[in-house]
Amino acid sequence: MAKEKGINVSKNRNFSEWYSQILDKAEVVDIRNNLKGFVVIRPWGAIAIENMYSLYEKALKDKGHNPTFFPVVIPEKNFKKESSHVEGFTPEVFWLEKVQGEERLALRPTSETSMYQMYSLWVRSHRDLPLKLYQRANVFRFDTKATRPLIRGREFYWLEAHDCFASLKEAEKQVEEDILMTEEIMHQRFGIPFLALKRPEWDKFPGAVYTVGSDVLMPDGKVIQQPSTHLLGQHFSKAFEIKFKDESEKESYVYQTCYGPEISRILVSVISIHGDDSGLVMPFCIAPLQIIIVPIFNQKNKNKIINESRNIMKKLKEIGLEVEVDESEKRPGEKYYEWELKGVPLRLEIGENELKEKKLSLFIRDIKKKEKIPIKELSNLQKKGEDFDKRLKEKADKFMEDKVLICKDKKSIEEAVKKGKIAKVNFCSISKEGEKCAETVEKELGAEVRGERRDMKEKPSGKCVFCNKNAKVVAYIAKSY
Amino acid sequence: MAKEKGINVSKNRNFSEWYSQILDKAEVVDIRNNLKGFVVIRPWGAIAIENMYSLYEKALKDKGHNPTFFPVVIPEKNFKKESSHVEGFTPEVFWLEKVQGEERLALRPTSETSMYQMYSLWVRSHRDLPLKLYQRANVFRFDTKATRPLIRGREFYWLEAHDCFASLKEAEKQVEEDILMTEEIMHQRFGIPFLALKRPEWDKFPGAVYTVGSDVLMPDGKVIQQPSTHLLGQHFSKAFEIKFKDESEKESYVYQTCYGPEISRILVSVISIHGDDSGLVMPFCIAPLQIIIVPIFNQKNKNKIINESRNIMKKLKEIGLEVEVDESEKRPGEKYYEWELKGVPLRLEIGENELKEKKLSLFIRDIKKKEKIPIKELSNLQKKGEDFDKRLKEKADKFMEDKVLICKDKKSIEEAVKKGKIAKVNFCSISKEGEKCAETVEKELGAEVRGERRDMKEKPSGKCVFCNKNAKVVAYIAKSY
Repeated sequence: MAKEKGINVSKNRNFSEWYSQILDKAEVVDIRNNLKGFVVIRPWGAIAIENMYSLYEKALKDKGHNPTFFPVVIPEKNFKKESSHVEGFTPEVFWLEKVQGEERLALRPTSETSMYQMYSLWVRSHRDLPLKLYQRANVFRFDTKATRPLIRGREFYWLEAHDCFASLKEAEKQVEEDILMTEEIMHQRFGIPFLALKRPEWDKFPGAVYTVGSDVLMPDGKVIQQPSTHLLGQHFSKAFEIKFKDESEKESYVYQTCYGPEISRILVSVISIHGDDSGLVMPFCIAPLQIIIVPIFNQKNKNKIINESRNIMKKLKEIGLEVEVDESEKRPGEKYYEWELKGVPLRLEIGENELKEKKLSLFIRDIKKKEKIPIKELSNLQKKGEDFDKRLKEKADKFMEDKVLICKDKKSIEEAVKKGKIAKVNFCSISKEGEKCAETVEKELGAEVRGERRDMKEKPSGKCVFCNKNAKVVAYIAKSY
Repeated sequence: MAKEKGINVSKNRNFSEWYSQILDKAEVVDIRNNLKGFVVIRPWGAIAIENMYSLYEKALKDKGHNPTFFPVVIPEKNFKKESSHVEGFTPEVFWLEKVQGEERLALRPTSETSMYQMYSLWVRSHRDLPLKLYQRANVFRFDTKATRPLIRGREFYWLEAHDCFASLKEAEKQVEEDILMTEEIMHQRFGIPFLALKRPEWDKFPGAVYTVGSDVLMPDGKVIQQPSTHLLGQHFSKAFEIKFKDESEKESYVYQTCYGPEISRILVSVISIHGDDSGLVMPFCIAPLQIIIVPIFNQKNKNKIINESRNIMKKLKEIGLEVEVDESEKRPGEKYYEWELKGVPLRLEIGENELKEKKLSLFIRDIKKKEKIPIKELSNLQKKGEDFDKRLKEKADKFMEDKVLICKDKKSIEEAVKKGKIAKVNFCSISKEGEKCAETVEKELGAEVRGERRDMKEKPSGKCVFCNKNAKVVAYIAKSY
């Protein structure tokens, strides 16, 4: 029975099948609603997503953002205001059936063209700047290939922050703040390492001056884009007439940025990077349940053991921990198995011996080790949780350690990406002029030029591996989702 | 200047204009996006809504509900499964432009037909029951009259809880728990009194056995429906094949309920009932800002006063209060005016005198009174906030006290509803047979039969005021939104 419930493939040998199984068996999502690109997120996934939202929203607020709610629909005429934006997004838009006498409406694929018409009303003077707003929203993209749940879908759950500044310098600083926020939340809290890469010109957000994506290397050796931040410059402010008067009453267009952490997709990386062949391993800071208490009893001592378990649960709840007692009728071994599959970080076992010794058995999910913890010291579990997350992050960092290879020629790049690594190479340019070499990369190596580092300066020395012109950048090449 | 910024009509004399002005001037919503039925919710409104969500979601969880996320779209064929549901909702549905080779999709007007197809997969045995799930969601109704922001719109922000039980009795108990939740949150916390009315047969939710609405009397004498709860019985479980095996392996259809607090609409009642001619009065428990600190300084002591203000803010934040210092360049009087307009419950004023005396001036928004509070006793502000909310509730309860009039004939009903009151009358029936009398009420009095109390039993004695048949219920009649 346990065999059927659990995951029966190895993550390293068949990541794709492992991923499908874990989403299903740990009850993260359900795809049996049978609606291409639209999945049902079950409580276990939903609570994790809520917890992730809450940490991210707190960070946005701490950095001066305020929440808003904008309509889910965008009139067609708004789209048309920024030309590269309309060109980039139109093929991906879901339209509503037109109502007679009313405008044609799109489901938002992103909200620039909805929000910025209001920004033009809200920004008047330098005293209104910076304007930093965000919304928690579901957005929609008509993706004909939408097949991998949470990875490629038609509806996803994200945060989008849209900021206005008086100068380009401040806007560029915001880009850096956004990258730092990804570092603070996604890497430091959720334990997911990433490369902050300024995307090539041909791969930027439609309407942006430039885009910085956060590339996360997945266990199958392909990178997935996590939060991206875009320097919009004055492209949209000119299209939407967002102007302010400075102290000398001179009128200028604002400089803009936007930032979009897709929470449902970050969950993909959390699941994929921390999970193992027994199931999920949820970071303590976002786990739907941080501690599960399994009472071990017989008919004679059942009441006593259950009562003690509840007492301990109550005490742990009082110090702010998410904890439950599994009082179901299953055998302890079965309970262990299920909660390991669901990735609960810590498990406490309480039986007759434990009560006698005044020490509980503590099972730690990631390292699969058992230790004893005195009942008196249970408040240490908060610290154990923090250590847990530190270990997950260190393990993920270690996984990345040898994954970026400096490559001097095509052959070594080919080998690197074949092995699921990221090649770091001298590359002619990520401006328009480099597109030809990027096409070669795609055609010959089945990989992508992902861009150059934006969080540090890296100087190329020598020629482009592909065209032999002087290299202007150090670029990263990888297979991608 | 202050005159233009503020509200220039009286709530009692012209509620409708007062409502429009307060939404605009206190920066709750902005309707200049010019999109019928879709409003932009600004930070001040958005933070209040977030706080309301958070209290409501906690209550749902405490009562055993788990969160989920279901797709925003529902395939046409799902709608068609429950016949009265499809009939009731089809005219209100926004459809997506059909994509070739794919199903026609609707934007969810409510999620029964989306969620219950999954429930049929999730419920197998009595051990899976009760199943209690909810989602925080935006839903959409194509309302041609959508004109009043947050009252009648095409998109609104709600919570919907959908529960399954093994017996009718448990489902009816859930209806009672839902009414109690409305009482605990909307009345006890937000200070909004309501009548829990079982709706007449002709006014129930499409697909329900019966509906209980929460009627809130607005300042203009019309009632508005707040959270409603529906006993669905087995209508949907039969249509969607949601079955379970009991302990003896006998298979039965589950009994269902659903409950829908519309957060954006509850905000309407909060604004309308507590607000006054100076602006918003936000309950302390959901106020975007609970305390505003206004420093009063001259050029000489500016730094000292601002620093002291920040210190106090820091201390108050540490005890969990939402507090800011208004460091803008405006005059204190202007600041007072603006923060009163925005309904911040408490204002602290800090100047040279206050520091000397070690007592701050405390202005209390609802009663507009000033008192002194020793700096040492600032932690009492939490208690002051609780008292604040208690007063709002008491005032709202008092407003309701003489609003329900027992009426024995048509003339007194007419007078009651004309005066903006609720008439309590002997009425033939809220089953199908009473519909004719209800039509009379609508035609002759411009009012509606809203139903009978569900939270208590009231026995009629005598004849129906309209048809003179024996009265089966005590019904409530009022004008409504």
